[in-house]
Amino acid sequence: MTYCIALRLEAGLVFLADTRTNAGVDNVSTYRKLHVFRPDAERLFVIQSAGNLASTQQVIDHIERDLAAGQGLAVAAGLSDAALYVGQLSREVVDQHRDALDRVGADGTSTFILGGQVAGERPDVLLVYPEGNYIRCSDDRPFLQIGETKYGKLMLEIAVEARVGMEDAIKIALSSMISTAHANLSVGPPYDLAVYQNGSFDVQVARIPEDSPVLGEIQERWTRHLLDAVADLPDLVPADFTT
Amino acid sequence: MTYCIALRLEAGLVFLADTRTNAGVDNVSTYRKLHVFRPDAERLFVIQSAGNLASTQQVIDHIERDLAAGQGLAVAAGLSDAALYVGQLSREVVDQHRDALDRVGADGTSTFILGGQVAGERPDVLLVYPEGNYIRCSDDRPFLQIGETKYGKLMLEIAVEARVGMEDAIKIALSSMISTAHANLSVGPPYDLAVYQNGSFDVQVARIPEDSPVLGEIQERWTRHLLDAVADLPDLVPADFTT
Repeated sequence: MTYCIALRLEAGLVFLADTRTNAGVDNVSTYRKLHVFRPDAERLFVIQSAGNLASTQQVIDHIERDLAAGQGLAVAAGLSDAALYVGQLSREVVDQHRDALDRVGADGTSTFILGGQVAGERPDVLLVYPEGNYIRCSDDRPFLQIGETKYGKLMLEIAVEARVGMEDAIKIALSSMISTAHANLSVGPPYDLAVYQNGSFDVQVARIPEDSPVLGEIQERWTRHLLDAVADLPDLVPADFTT
Repeated sequence: MTYCIALRLEAGLVFLADTRTNAGVDNVSTYRKLHVFRPDAERLFVIQSAGNLASTQQVIDHIERDLAAGQGLAVAAGLSDAALYVGQLSREVVDQHRDALDRVGADGTSTFILGGQVAGERPDVLLVYPEGNYIRCSDDRPFLQIGETKYGKLMLEIAVEARVGMEDAIKIALSSMISTAHANLSVGPPYDLAVYQNGSFDVQVARIPEDSPVLGEIQERWTRHLLDAVADLPDLVPADFTT
């Protein structure tokens, strides 16, 4: 499994991905699932992947090869074109291996988040389905998740509803990630973070290792606040026990 | 879908269940999924159900019929016997309808939580699988969930790790339920709560309606504390952005 988050905020975009991969519980490894592509000063793409590791690697390799030849993301007219391009590559890779994968009952499909900015467009975040089509993130809930999305969804929703800024969004994304890793062994550190300021056409990236003091501190403070919250919740009164 | 929680605490047991049922998004209704059985002064059972509504109702009807005849839960030697009995009924009901359900591609199976106390045993909480076998809740994580378990798991884990008391456990269960209902339309109020004090062989039950002031208050305070927590989380420092 995998967990990737992308948030679209007023000032920019925040991307966070775990790095754990597994083929069964006895074959666990660490691979980058967050990739940055900057073809030129007017186009910046961040791609996150979930699904079949071989397929995602072949797609990323293909993107890089096309880029080197001045194609693909180098010429995509905008984010939606780029999403369709990634979706088409994804389908082609799966089609190439479908017969062999079907024979062993393996799922070769992948899902991608594509975010960034192309000059002349507003920055955005899109989700590319295994079928090759895409959706943008919603204006009302401007974030997307792929992989193990359920455990950490609540805090993302609360955050975007409260219209937090970039700094808080990064903390919330990390909290959402830690919660998910806590619940699901197939999601784990190190975590790759990418932060994009609108119009910069460049990203800050960070790899946050398992032993990062920040992760421990977030976990500890988060737990403390949750327990404080519980202590502050209203008691049920006897009138509630009426049936 | 459904969401049911059962916690085993030092002083007793807490059960919480939603009531929403749906067969497609255009056929939504409200049904009780938490049932209390008190055959005599030495045995008390709470049963929560998730899965096929028709199957669970037939199982509950069968349990009541057996009880009236002085059988089933009335004579189960302990909670594990009771769990095997419920599991057997569950399998029989599915077997009875399997051919017809298979023809329309419907899943007739159900999962149950069985909790309570039989005199001479400690109170406990068990999960009965559709296959008829069961597990007890863990001594390290003494709670069980059935249905849509992921969204609200984190706060249950934090709670049991902090060894909260019954009052706080009820609030945490409600918070977990509200979070899940917020994320998944197929989980919804009113909520049925049952609270068992060890050795009492009786339960307090409550139905908490959608417009309950307590629910609104929990939601509001919970959101406020989450945002406070976010504000208090440590900032990433430039040294974190090293790659």
